[in-house]
Amino acid sequence: MSSAPLICTPAALASAGPALKAAVLAEALPYLRRYSGQTILVKYGGHAMGGGSGDGDTFARDIAFLKQVGIHPIVVHGGGPQINHMLQRLGIKSSFVNGLRVTDQATLEVVEMVLCGTINKQLAAEINAAGGRAIGISGKDGGLIRARRLTRNGELGFVGEPEEIDRRVLDTFRQSDIIPVIAPLGVDAGGATYNINADTVAGAIAAAVKATRFLLLTDVPGVLDDNKELVPELTAAEARSLIASGVVTGGMTPKVETCLDAVAGGVEAAVIVDGRVPHAILLELFTEGGAGTLIRGG
Amino acid sequence: MSSAPLICTPAALASAGPALKAAVLAEALPYLRRYSGQTILVKYGGHAMGGGSGDGDTFARDIAFLKQVGIHPIVVHGGGPQINHMLQRLGIKSSFVNGLRVTDQATLEVVEMVLCGTINKQLAAEINAAGGRAIGISGKDGGLIRARRLTRNGELGFVGEPEEIDRRVLDTFRQSDIIPVIAPLGVDAGGATYNINADTVAGAIAAAVKATRFLLLTDVPGVLDDNKELVPELTAAEARSLIASGVVTGGMTPKVETCLDAVAGGVEAAVIVDGRVPHAILLELFTEGGAGTLIRGG
Amino acid sequence: MSSAPLICTPAALASAGPALKAAVLAEALPYLRRYSGQTILVKYGGHAMGGGSGDGDTFARDIAFLKQVGIHPIVVHGGGPQINHMLQRLGIKSSFVNGLRVTDQATLEVVEMVLCGTINKQLAAEINAAGGRAIGISGKDGGLIRARRLTRNGELGFVGEPEEIDRRVLDTFRQSDIIPVIAPLGVDAGGATYNINADTVAGAIAAAVKATRFLLLTDVPGVLDDNKELVPELTAAEARSLIASGVVTGGMTPKVETCLDAVAGGVEAAVIVDGRVPHAILLELFTEGGAGTLIRGG
Amino acid sequence: MSSAPLICTPAALASAGPALKAAVLAEALPYLRRYSGQTILVKYGGHAMGGGSGDGDTFARDIAFLKQVGIHPIVVHGGGPQINHMLQRLGIKSSFVNGLRVTDQATLEVVEMVLCGTINKQLAAEINAAGGRAIGISGKDGGLIRARRLTRNGELGFVGEPEEIDRRVLDTFRQSDIIPVIAPLGVDAGGATYNINADTVAGAIAAAVKATRFLLLTDVPGVLDDNKELVPELTAAEARSLIASGVVTGGMTPKVETCLDAVAGGVEAAVIVDGRVPHAILLELFTEGGAGTLIRGG
Amino acid sequence: MSSAPLICTPAALASAGPALKAAVLAEALPYLRRYSGQTILVKYGGHAMGGGSGDGDTFARDIAFLKQVGIHPIVVHGGGPQINHMLQRLGIKSSFVNGLRVTDQATLEVVEMVLCGTINKQLAAEINAAGGRAIGISGKDGGLIRARRLTRNGELGFVGEPEEIDRRVLDTFRQSDIIPVIAPLGVDAGGATYNINADTVAGAIAAAVKATRFLLLTDVPGVLDDNKELVPELTAAEARSLIASGVVTGGMTPKVETCLDAVAGGVEAAVIVDGRVPHAILLELFTEGGAGTLIRGG
Amino acid sequence: MSSAPLICTPAALASAGPALKAAVLAEALPYLRRYSGQTILVKYGGHAMGGGSGDGDTFARDIAFLKQVGIHPIVVHGGGPQINHMLQRLGIKSSFVNGLRVTDQATLEVVEMVLCGTINKQLAAEINAAGGRAIGISGKDGGLIRARRLTRNGELGFVGEPEEIDRRVLDTFRQSDIIPVIAPLGVDAGGATYNINADTVAGAIAAAVKATRFLLLTDVPGVLDDNKELVPELTAAEARSLIASGVVTGGMTPKVETCLDAVAGGVEAAVIVDGRVPHAILLELFTEGGAGTLIRGG
Repeated sequence: MSSAPLICTPAALASAGPALKAAVLAEALPYLRRYSGQTILVKYGGHAMGGGSGDGDTFARDIAFLKQVGIHPIVVHGGGPQINHMLQRLGIKSSFVNGLRVTDQATLEVVEMVLCGTINKQLAAEINAAGGRAIGISGKDGGLIRARRLTRNGELGFVGEPEEIDRRVLDTFRQSDIIPVIAPLGVDAGGATYNINADTVAGAIAAAVKATRFLLLTDVPGVLDDNKELVPELTAAEARSLIASGVVTGGMTPKVETCLDAVAGGVEAAVIVDGRVPHAILLELFTEGGAGTLIRGG
Repeated sequence: MSSAPLICTPAALASAGPALKAAVLAEALPYLRRYSGQTILVKYGGHAMGGGSGDGDTFARDIAFLKQVGIHPIVVHGGGPQINHMLQRLGIKSSFVNGLRVTDQATLEVVEMVLCGTINKQLAAEINAAGGRAIGISGKDGGLIRARRLTRNGELGFVGEPEEIDRRVLDTFRQSDIIPVIAPLGVDAGGATYNINADTVAGAIAAAVKATRFLLLTDVPGVLDDNKELVPELTAAEARSLIASGVVTGGMTPKVETCLDAVAGGVEAAVIVDGRVPHAILLELFTEGGAGTLIRGG
Repeated sequence: MSSAPLICTPAALASAGPALKAAVLAEALPYLRRYSGQTILVKYGGHAMGGGSGDGDTFARDIAFLKQVGIHPIVVHGGGPQINHMLQRLGIKSSFVNGLRVTDQATLEVVEMVLCGTINKQLAAEINAAGGRAIGISGKDGGLIRARRLTRNGELGFVGEPEEIDRRVLDTFRQSDIIPVIAPLGVDAGGATYNINADTVAGAIAAAVKATRFLLLTDVPGVLDDNKELVPELTAAEARSLIASGVVTGGMTPKVETCLDAVAGGVEAAVIVDGRVPHAILLELFTEGGAGTLIRGG
Repeated sequence: MSSAPLICTPAALASAGPALKAAVLAEALPYLRRYSGQTILVKYGGHAMGGGSGDGDTFARDIAFLKQVGIHPIVVHGGGPQINHMLQRLGIKSSFVNGLRVTDQATLEVVEMVLCGTINKQLAAEINAAGGRAIGISGKDGGLIRARRLTRNGELGFVGEPEEIDRRVLDTFRQSDIIPVIAPLGVDAGGATYNINADTVAGAIAAAVKATRFLLLTDVPGVLDDNKELVPELTAAEARSLIASGVVTGGMTPKVETCLDAVAGGVEAAVIVDGRVPHAILLELFTEGGAGTLIRGG
Repeated sequence: MSSAPLICTPAALASAGPALKAAVLAEALPYLRRYSGQTILVKYGGHAMGGGSGDGDTFARDIAFLKQVGIHPIVVHGGGPQINHMLQRLGIKSSFVNGLRVTDQATLEVVEMVLCGTINKQLAAEINAAGGRAIGISGKDGGLIRARRLTRNGELGFVGEPEEIDRRVLDTFRQSDIIPVIAPLGVDAGGATYNINADTVAGAIAAAVKATRFLLLTDVPGVLDDNKELVPELTAAEARSLIASGVVTGGMTPKVETCLDAVAGGVEAAVIVDGRVPHAILLELFTEGGAGTLIRGG
Repeated sequence: MSSAPLICTPAALASAGPALKAAVLAEALPYLRRYSGQTILVKYGGHAMGGGSGDGDTFARDIAFLKQVGIHPIVVHGGGPQINHMLQRLGIKSSFVNGLRVTDQATLEVVEMVLCGTINKQLAAEINAAGGRAIGISGKDGGLIRARRLTRNGELGFVGEPEEIDRRVLDTFRQSDIIPVIAPLGVDAGGATYNINADTVAGAIAAAVKATRFLLLTDVPGVLDDNKELVPELTAAEARSLIASGVVTGGMTPKVETCLDAVAGGVEAAVIVDGRVPHAILLELFTEGGAGTLIRGG
């Protein structure tokens, strides 16, 4: 893990001469080869989206870059803050149980509307503006996510969990230049729509497509050890142990658990990445640096 | 054009024996062959969607049926009433010029949210529930619709018209079992989003993909002559003449003009179909009957 | 099993309005999906062919319909009555042992000539007239049926049984729009031609291609129970029990045994269908009705 | 044109050592390359078939050889003598007008039965026994030959001529290892079957598939000049001149005219070949020798 | 054209942090898209090869990088110095006419041996070591270069020029991950081998495959104007004018003429590149910088 | 094994009439079918190449013949005599240990130069002149042969053995009309080049591609028994026994061992063929004769 600054200012980039740039490109060759033809699942968070730092822009360019060089990105996004904002505008009260939004019919309609009609379209459009060919869909489209009601956390209404992923539409996209951007909703056998935690959806799809990397973009640096230092890499066993010992706590716990599920489901490695860092995805995949904590099977 | 009743009650269907049903299927063979491998563009209206008659359901089954038998449907939808409703809830005032909604930034956000996040997803889900594999996208996804600002009707804000259709994503879907459902938005070269009239989008896509039929579903019976009788078929010249002579007036005028544009753009025939009739699409394509006015090139 | 009349008169079909017809088509969707891409082996009997009821015509349209909607029919036919007629015209005497025709060289020549030169070509031509693309071949063509002399029933001359089915030509046809129509002859390793029971050939091919349905068209209603009532469905065990108990007797016994062989060989279900009923195939596959007895593995 | 004997006795072949055989194979390389991927249309005559010299056997091996080395043979056959024999056995009188058989319904049935049920199956079986994968069809199968009634020679009944060749089934076979063997019948738009002259059918198919060679196998040496010497090669103009001058007469005239039609229709060259010579096809295509008269476009 | 130093020292690359590297990669996206699926013909000179600066290494990595990101490089090389060295060792005297080596049989054998057996293999091996899948062939392999004796410069022996390029083997490689490395020899219709100027071969192949860029690597900075300043870009007309006016002289003249021929033959642009600069190819294609003179059609 | 003379003089071939030639071609049909689509690995020796008998020419035509008729030849060659000659010219002394050339850096350069630059190109050119599409590569190209230093015979310098065969480039060639001609060099993980025994390379590639036949062309008649009579066929066990008993000795021992390794590695049969016999390959594969000793698995 390099100690170099994680942010390259426009001035720094401008002052880098073409010779340096060519050298940097050439240096990426082994990484390009390693991931060529592989699938990279990227969870893009609602928090990261709101930032004024232009991260959305570097995110979109990173995703377009992957597809351009023969790697297959799949993007899953959330949208909590934007949903909250619209619920407020419509005067709908929202409550949470164990961090999960209690979702009645009126809330569900707003959730779907904001996720699929605002965030999903904006993300796809940004990737397209960066030169990709993104298509925004929800987990309801193409039968992608068969959901069931989530009941183990009490009565939450239309909150669900993935029961089965039907990867056929993703396979069709994979053979084309289409980049899928997925909103975390699903439908049950009876046709009811469910709001699903975006991290959970991302992990489940990562496992279903046997992604090489599951990049969980967050707004924290990664897993911290008991000295509050970033841990660059963990085995699954070590990660479980950090949860058991209480070093990993709070909102980080479900994130690590989602990573563990993905790894157990066949993903080669899951990475909790600091999405606030520009070009976090290229940084993680194509340089010796990185901006988070990688959890590997074992 | 048969004078038989256009609606088959559930009781009538139930009382039809299997022998009759088998005979009806066999009778459809020449129609199946005529449209096999062809593209059918269906414009599904916001008005038709709201009905309590279960039309949405027969619509979805008709679309799934087409793809299942080797025909390629593309669905474009509008959503005026649902947009109005949400604008009201959010306290945003809307005005119209020449039937086009003046669309400022706040209105545009609601338009996109409702079209892409509510109606589009619902339509795709209904087709999926009927056994199809539909994917709801907007004209912004995959670079499908390059738009430009519409200026000939005065200052309307973010109201656009299609400048260019990039059919590549539709071609990818065509070679798979995916049925596209398209919300009528587009993006210009600078990345700005535009609200576009759904009939116009449907006609432009129909022409771009050289559809065999452009079915414009409405909530009226079709074109009426000066005796207020339904006209089953018109040449393009006859249609233009009916507009010139004032027989076709009001909201029917732009619909006929959209059909004329589509036919001029290479569509074999455009049909203004009464979408309130159950199974209006199958009725139009697979029986000697029909529920509207067909306009043919010439 | 519906009690509705099994025959739909032209008048009844004519009086059915387009609305009913569209509803009937839509209702067929789940059946279309179930059989899509599957193979349906149809044994068409010589008796059924001779009828004056125009059955041949509905048969041909049913077969063309299947291929048109993405299902793969294979037709095997017999031709006993027509063979008898030609043997008589040529003054050749024919005798039977256990229902099998003793076949000397002179008889074999007539059998092949009538099966391949008259019936096979007529059936293929009827399917073509109905809009299909049928090709009439015999089991000798393309090495389809490797036969061996049938000896367990005494000295029958050139009467054989299938030793091996080489499905390669059928696989080539499957990937095209070609519908094979097969006359039941085979050839042994030494090049000798054999006359084979058409039901046996049909069952053997059904098993070789793992057909979803083996429809054995006959001129009786199906399997009757000891009250002479039609049995709509049987497990393999039940079917064997009906033979053992003597409820199934006479010509029905080898038909049920052929179905049992097919099911044992991997066919999902075999159906003894009353081929005298118009559109018997569509009736069986696409409606809740049916016209015979289905035997399922188990 | 070599003056070596045209027949290689088994003893001569046996006495040829492996060294000579290997040298002969290697010498064929330029011919193999010239015809690789090309289509060769072979008309095999009814007269040639009856011979006791085992010609049928060398014919079948030649055809199988072509397909094996990547050349695409199509076989069309006649069957006059066999038809005559069966008409006699059935007591049906036959008359001829200008060399064409007057064909009433009863005669047509025998013609089709013998051509499709006896000769066609025998030829396909011989090619299969020689290691090919032949399929015997008639021009009615797969809509191959659309015929119309031949009227310019007076009232002949069901005697037709090709109106249109639909090469799609031949194209499917071409992409597989299937060798088509075709009986010369066709069907008109109304579904009526017609008996067509086999040479005419062969020439029409040769033109439709743009065959490189049309080999018209006969039981004469080829075109003779006015000294009764064999003419090895003719331009189209020379051939027409030999007819005009009366040097070509009798049954040879329609043969030469069929060749001229084929060449005019796009066949590179047509050859009237002496089919009585063993391995006449390989002799013609793969050696500097030959056994007939080649007519080239010009 | 940047004035930044053209060489990036290892220390400079090492001190560039991951953030800068990720930013540089993202910045390459528009260039990656521009050249995606295109062919880049690279002429690699014998002079550049001998250098001790490790240029060969950066050359190999640049080539492997192109193929990895979906661009299709073709390499043509010379080898004058190495040929001279071996001729000396073998005691063979060499003379030149107009810069072309007089090539008798003994010389030709050494030329082919050194080009194909030493340089060609070394270059391919270097690209393979860099992670590509290169195959070293000569213009004689696969019938790639049909040559004819070059006579307009007097009697030069086995010195030839390309008469026809058969791009079929290159097309086969293009559809795989194989990178062709080509030694500049050709063969005439009679089978005689010819030594051909490598620049000429490179330009001819660039035109035959309609390369997007023809990069002519040399050991000079590019075309200099009459102030001895590097000219970054020229139209074809301007280039011709510089030759006519004597500004371009000496060894640069045939290089510019080869570029003009390539551009006239359909290449989008030809670039005389300073091959001594590390990563000269990536520099030219993927940065706003460059290291030579681009000549564009016009 | 025929006792006919193994050499067919041009006069004998000329006197063979076309009838005999056609009969010989037809007789080859079962052999063509047996090897169709199979891979034949041919080791062509340096000794055979130098002969004045025009063997190279018949060799090239045999190889082109195989590919033309749908069989896939792969050629591996040696080049001892030519290497010796060039080492002499350059004044480099060579020594041998256990029949393996001690290979220092200077020797290695000459070995690679002569094998890849002279012999490899000449062989490919001869096959091309005979009508094939051959490409000359070395085992270093495309990563074909990963080598390791051979140490069990003492210090030999850059003498290696195959560690792993990467058949991907051969698979690409197989699907095209390209015939690979391979020089026996390999590269280790560190990039060092190794000289490898050509027989060993040929056997290793034969096993890697599961060749149907491995033809080891030599300049002796084959394996002789203790009466000095040629043994036409041996099981692996018999071959091992002949080595153990000292009947097989000298240079024949490693040849038989290479054949045994190939057969153990999955090759159907290996044949030690007398390459001095014209058309030795066609003789072996397509006639009942042969020119050597076949060793079969067991």
